[in-house]
Amino acid sequence: MPQSFATPSPFTAPFTSSGRSALVQAPPWHYAGWLVNVAFEFDAVRGAALVPAELGAPTGRGCVHFADWQARGDDGQALLDPVYAQYRETIVVLELAGRPGEAARFYCPLIYVDQDISLLRGWLQGWPKKIGNTWLTRSLPLIHPAASPLSQGSRLGASLSVKERRLVDASVTLTGEKAERLGLLGAPTIGAVGWPDLTQPGSVATPRYLRADIIDCVESGWTGGTATLQFHEHPVEELALLGEVRASTASAGWMGITVRGALAA
Amino acid sequence: MPQSFATPSPFTAPFTSSGRSALVQAPPWHYAGWLVNVAFEFDAVRGAALVPAELGAPTGRGCVHFADWQARGDDGQALLDPVYAQYRETIVVLELAGRPGEAARFYCPLIYVDQDISLLRGWLQGWPKKIGNTWLTRSLPLIHPAASPLSQGSRLGASLSVKERRLVDASVTLTGEKAERLGLLGAPTIGAVGWPDLTQPGSVATPRYLRADIIDCVESGWTGGTATLQFHEHPVEELALLGEVRASTASAGWMGITVRGALAA
Amino acid sequence: MPQSFATPSPFTAPFTSSGRSALVQAPPWHYAGWLVNVAFEFDAVRGAALVPAELGAPTGRGCVHFADWQARGDDGQALLDPVYAQYRETIVVLELAGRPGEAARFYCPLIYVDQDISLLRGWLQGWPKKIGNTWLTRSLPLIHPAASPLSQGSRLGASLSVKERRLVDASVTLTGEKAERLGLLGAPTIGAVGWPDLTQPGSVATPRYLRADIIDCVESGWTGGTATLQFHEHPVEELALLGEVRASTASAGWMGITVRGALAA
Amino acid sequence: MPQSFATPSPFTAPFTSSGRSALVQAPPWHYAGWLVNVAFEFDAVRGAALVPAELGAPTGRGCVHFADWQARGDDGQALLDPVYAQYRETIVVLELAGRPGEAARFYCPLIYVDQDISLLRGWLQGWPKKIGNTWLTRSLPLIHPAASPLSQGSRLGASLSVKERRLVDASVTLTGEKAERLGLLGAPTIGAVGWPDLTQPGSVATPRYLRADIIDCVESGWTGGTATLQFHEHPVEELALLGEVRASTASAGWMGITVRGALAA
Repeated sequence: MPQSFATPSPFTAPFTSSGRSALVQAPPWHYAGWLVNVAFEFDAVRGAALVPAELGAPTGRGCVHFADWQARGDDGQALLDPVYAQYRETIVVLELAGRPGEAARFYCPLIYVDQDISLLRGWLQGWPKKIGNTWLTRSLPLIHPAASPLSQGSRLGASLSVKERRLVDASVTLTGEKAERLGLLGAPTIGAVGWPDLTQPGSVATPRYLRADIIDCVESGWTGGTATLQFHEHPVEELALLGEVRASTASAGWMGITVRGALAA
Repeated sequence: MPQSFATPSPFTAPFTSSGRSALVQAPPWHYAGWLVNVAFEFDAVRGAALVPAELGAPTGRGCVHFADWQARGDDGQALLDPVYAQYRETIVVLELAGRPGEAARFYCPLIYVDQDISLLRGWLQGWPKKIGNTWLTRSLPLIHPAASPLSQGSRLGASLSVKERRLVDASVTLTGEKAERLGLLGAPTIGAVGWPDLTQPGSVATPRYLRADIIDCVESGWTGGTATLQFHEHPVEELALLGEVRASTASAGWMGITVRGALAA
Repeated sequence: MPQSFATPSPFTAPFTSSGRSALVQAPPWHYAGWLVNVAFEFDAVRGAALVPAELGAPTGRGCVHFADWQARGDDGQALLDPVYAQYRETIVVLELAGRPGEAARFYCPLIYVDQDISLLRGWLQGWPKKIGNTWLTRSLPLIHPAASPLSQGSRLGASLSVKERRLVDASVTLTGEKAERLGLLGAPTIGAVGWPDLTQPGSVATPRYLRADIIDCVESGWTGGTATLQFHEHPVEELALLGEVRASTASAGWMGITVRGALAA
Repeated sequence: MPQSFATPSPFTAPFTSSGRSALVQAPPWHYAGWLVNVAFEFDAVRGAALVPAELGAPTGRGCVHFADWQARGDDGQALLDPVYAQYRETIVVLELAGRPGEAARFYCPLIYVDQDISLLRGWLQGWPKKIGNTWLTRSLPLIHPAASPLSQGSRLGASLSVKERRLVDASVTLTGEKAERLGLLGAPTIGAVGWPDLTQPGSVATPRYLRADIIDCVESGWTGGTATLQFHEHPVEELALLGEVRASTASAGWMGITVRGALAA
């Protein structure tokens, strides 16, 4: 059935004549944020509960990214009304075993965000987002007891709760040294989306594997740290299926990226 | 690409082996709620901004439904952990002109809900939901100044805000008399969903017109009232494009429905 | 220092000339709500961690009330803008040992609400409120799978979370039989408030024991049930200090009360 | 009545034996945050609606501070569980006319914060806080379209909503030049608190004028800007009583302070 409204066609529902109230506007999308990243190790066998076999086996390495984002489209309006621009999210990624010599790849089984625009923008890129509440300490450029500056000995905390239950707790103590890119900061990351068709009885979603098409990336540099990490039991969420996880290293810093679409993975 | 996990396949993303953390479980979905309904009239010509031409012209009659829902699947777990079951939403529906003798039909251009499960469950049925905060006075079965019982002279209020701005205000004074079914309570209601494909540059969503496939409906009976209604200006939301609206009648009561899927509209 | 503004003097801060933006307006305050009540037994010795010795020893009996309130002042405006009227709270009360022949009394060590007006109105009456999120299933007057009607076999759930962690979980199965008043529904209940004076170094709050001065109470009648109840560990909140609790009985129903002030307890 | 629990006595309600669940712990309190400050001019005569006459007349100059705080006590635990540390607030201050040669002083008629610990900690210091939702763009140390870095031409937005209505909107365009301290950043600021006694019929709150006793302050330096500012009509909140306001200058930056108590003003 043809799109009935005149140009510009709405990029997403709701479908109004102007397209102004579309939940998501067309890319490019510009994101800048503060991230606390905790790399962890887990029992690779357990990872099969969260990774589709056709993508490959998990290696037993993963990363949790806690992010405090600011996002905008090309028109920049969101930065002037920041309830539209800002959100926090927790992204869990698990490394996929590749063939010898292949570059590392990650898969995102679970990701949680706190508002609707980011939820849908994420799904369109392959991120299987649900709503959850993320908190993360920020480093402020001050020497003060409440500032957690980016220097040796500063301590940061981060947490995720979903449907009124704490699901993830992490803490980081900064070493003050430069760190490598962890998790999705340094490797392509695949997600899966798909929608059942309710007009077909028995329909379920077919996963489609995608990754964001990132055309620009800037970083402030990453400051390293040591960390603790717990995934708590939850009646619905499944991170605790990974068993006991061991935080191997951590980092914190700022990053900006621009996404113009998605690529089949 | 085939679904990689064993039965039961997840109904929606996230795609884990167990399907336990899927955002939405398969229907049937059972909904019961308290609704405050305000029928209104508006300039039909203005309605074209919100109604796709291929569905027909708006008649100038519409209804806003403020709902305080409780929903569950067949397993009933959500009623025991009500953060999973309860949500509030505001549904705006506009009547479509039909041919002589045809039954009334409504179209839902805009609908706002306050949590993620309902958001996606709605999208799958054709409701173009966004996140918004709905408040509505409840009638309690008490003779008390704070109870607003379902009797003559009780006053109820309802409101919707989206992204920190008040978008809709309504008030109802009950007459205590039995009322007819208003808006979607008494007529099929069509919505539109559709998603762009980010792997295709320039892709926009193609609307697919659906309506819920309702297999059971119970009502407490509707108590009538008079009402006031305002749609406020908003930089993104477009209800004010309808111009000044005149509340024609109103009702309040309880309703339960069961949905098993969606039908092409 | 004298109050500087003309009549009417603001009842609370903020102190503006009109008093219109005072957080709380003067009583009387009218409350009507849906309550799920779970009576429980616990190790009385453990209760001393939560009950001031000067009030007497706990008996080992207590009650948790989950409430979905609607409140208003004499002017009734809040019912027309229900974000001002509605809130949910969880109230924990512990029975105090009295002398032989004395009527039962309860003490409220901990209570959690989800908005500011109720927070302060509570403090003024002696309720030591903090912010927390309460969810409770509602009984709707429908025969429907999502309605949990007030009849034998209906199941209800209730929960409290504080600072992103689940603190209380309860479930109730209704017997459909009439129940007695549980907890504060049937006995005077004492709370403690008091604030330190920051101009005095070392000042701490001195508890002042109060109870609400209730001048009117109506009930729908209480429907009985059996229940389960858990108080979870929490790094700040202390309900788990009561040890394992045993839900003894439960009820659900509607109640309206009017409060005109507070009484020294 | 004596405090019944052993050391440490709770600093505030709730009053448990351990004091662990007291809403607020004793000072010192350390705060560090990102602030966007908009100085404005208004009709001084209108200011009398918001300023107690006994403090002096408003000069017609004021400032709105939008703040994204991180706060902790001496034990530092809050930084490891940042739902306890972080909050956002909007602070409105109006300059008080002094005698010739006297230093500038401000009065805070209205202030809005988004969580309970800060609400009470504020009241104890004289800040008449209510709950409201503040959003403000952050400057990130990146050259990126979503980063709004602290340099010439960057644009920032800020907003406040209270009870589901937008109350304040501001936008700032940075000049990149160093700015002076605006509003409370550079002058003592007085607030008013007071509590009615509900055991005394007809009691209203008597304002007590206080200011925070700040023992340490660090700043990143302030970057100047031009601004727009609107105070919107609201059925309860009274900022619009100031009439049309004219943003005169603006700044943004980071600040840390430590408070050990309050001083009579």
